[in-house]
Amino acid sequence: MSILCVGSVALDSVETPFGKAERVPGGSAVFFTAAASLLSPVRVVGVVGDDYPDEALDFLAERGADLSGIEHRKGESFFWAGRYDFDLNSRDTLETRLGVFGDFRPKIPDSFRSSRIVFLGNIDPDLQHDVLARVESPDLVACDTMNFWIEGKRDRLVSLLEKVDILLINDSEARQLAGEANLLKASRWIQAHGPEMVVVKKGEHGAILFSEDGVFFVPGYPLEALADPTGAGDAFAGGFLGYLSRAGAVDPEHLRRAMVYGSAMGSYAVEAFSVDRFRELTQDEVATRVVEFRRMTSFEIPTEAPQHV
Amino acid sequence: MSILCVGSVALDSVETPFGKAERVPGGSAVFFTAAASLLSPVRVVGVVGDDYPDEALDFLAERGADLSGIEHRKGESFFWAGRYDFDLNSRDTLETRLGVFGDFRPKIPDSFRSSRIVFLGNIDPDLQHDVLARVESPDLVACDTMNFWIEGKRDRLVSLLEKVDILLINDSEARQLAGEANLLKASRWIQAHGPEMVVVKKGEHGAILFSEDGVFFVPGYPLEALADPTGAGDAFAGGFLGYLSRAGAVDPEHLRRAMVYGSAMGSYAVEAFSVDRFRELTQDEVATRVVEFRRMTSFEIPTEAPQHV
Repeated sequence: MSILCVGSVALDSVETPFGKAERVPGGSAVFFTAAASLLSPVRVVGVVGDDYPDEALDFLAERGADLSGIEHRKGESFFWAGRYDFDLNSRDTLETRLGVFGDFRPKIPDSFRSSRIVFLGNIDPDLQHDVLARVESPDLVACDTMNFWIEGKRDRLVSLLEKVDILLINDSEARQLAGEANLLKASRWIQAHGPEMVVVKKGEHGAILFSEDGVFFVPGYPLEALADPTGAGDAFAGGFLGYLSRAGAVDPEHLRRAMVYGSAMGSYAVEAFSVDRFRELTQDEVATRVVEFRRMTSFEIPTEAPQHV
Repeated sequence: MSILCVGSVALDSVETPFGKAERVPGGSAVFFTAAASLLSPVRVVGVVGDDYPDEALDFLAERGADLSGIEHRKGESFFWAGRYDFDLNSRDTLETRLGVFGDFRPKIPDSFRSSRIVFLGNIDPDLQHDVLARVESPDLVACDTMNFWIEGKRDRLVSLLEKVDILLINDSEARQLAGEANLLKASRWIQAHGPEMVVVKKGEHGAILFSEDGVFFVPGYPLEALADPTGAGDAFAGGFLGYLSRAGAVDPEHLRRAMVYGSAMGSYAVEAFSVDRFRELTQDEVATRVVEFRRMTSFEIPTEAPQHV
């Protein structure tokens, strides 16, 4: 199965306590594809200006990602500059220049329209609606969003939810969207508005899947050497949907594994600036980390529990 | 095996967005015992004034907790008043009156000195030293602390660590104690100063055990109805050590289960004010919640993983 991914293709300048990087590849579509392409074919739709170093994404094409849906336009690529605090949990945006992304209208190549899985990266909900209108009955539609759209285009976002199977969203944004501080209730609110499944991303604290199967937790992978958390959420989505695409099924057991692949991919995003950690990453390394997740979370319950004497 | 628990026996006045309670039983020793006594015999050492409603703790004695080490003195019991914010993650202390707890010198009854497991609740590290000096070679010494002692009695706390097998501590306090923002490195620092095991408590995000066996995560139990988070950390410690006491072994598999019992007991503390949720709590209810934890965290890895085609 192929995944259609629509999102930003950006240049980021990032400073963290552990280093800095200037004008390196970023954006939701790039992080998503860097992770998902290790597991599944991906078709990318986005836009770049004439300043974009296309060769920086060659490794994605070599891995089978179809980048023919990335439109090249005259002008500047979407640029974001940010700085992270000591604990990497809060960041300041130093500069945002939309460039050619400012009037981005996703153009879905005909050959992409039959994609079975669709990932609507964090872009204007109007554009997310447009993309869905142009794909033929996909099996699975997943969507990300952020506070900017929750505040600015709430109605369009809520009407989009009716067409979405899985919403991936940060914990604070899930609360904001639902107007509900309790995460269980917030996810129920979201599920009542469309998505059968809600993935709540909690950064270093992991992620929670709410579905008909109940609640499933995956922790964040404990890292000793962190570099830059930018893109971890999109890499999570890439691992999650990449796994489901590879598995070819969306049942409870596959969804659990997809969460673990998501968290593993999110951790790789944090280990280096930009998508650098994904360049040489192998499927074997990912499989090894997934086994580590199992070791970090599994426990047995003896049939005969010892009694209090 | 019996657990010796030394800590505060307090009266709390607590206000949360979900209600309030006036002068209700609280304190580290009370929350610890409320949880641990469901799983193991507990011997409690503390002090109360003549205003303490002793009958409020009768349910602990009925469950086999030995309260004969709670000294009764003329004067006021330790009193704490606090108010929690909307998200329950931050709280303001409105009032603290130490009362008879101000010059508390733990008196360990002779019959308690042979306890195999010792829990040093969050009190002055000097007193924690004193308690350890008065018990005969216990099998397992666990200890809690807080920022107040990390800042005010750092040297005494660090020298205590040499005698401690398990430190239970909040994530922010683990970072503060080690002077290290990275939690993996912080726990290594702590382990290098004595405790073979470190349990980092992260509130709603669960807890992490660092040990020779590696890293083990347990999530927080997702609650729809929260009342008051006061005492959740001490109830966690009670579930954790209560389980180990009942199991009579401290091997990796038992430690994992102990973490789950800890998180389960922490969740009960949050479900009601004071120790009210523990009054009627049964071992069967706890066992059912432990099974739910397994369901919320377990996943299988197929021997033959599907390949990317």
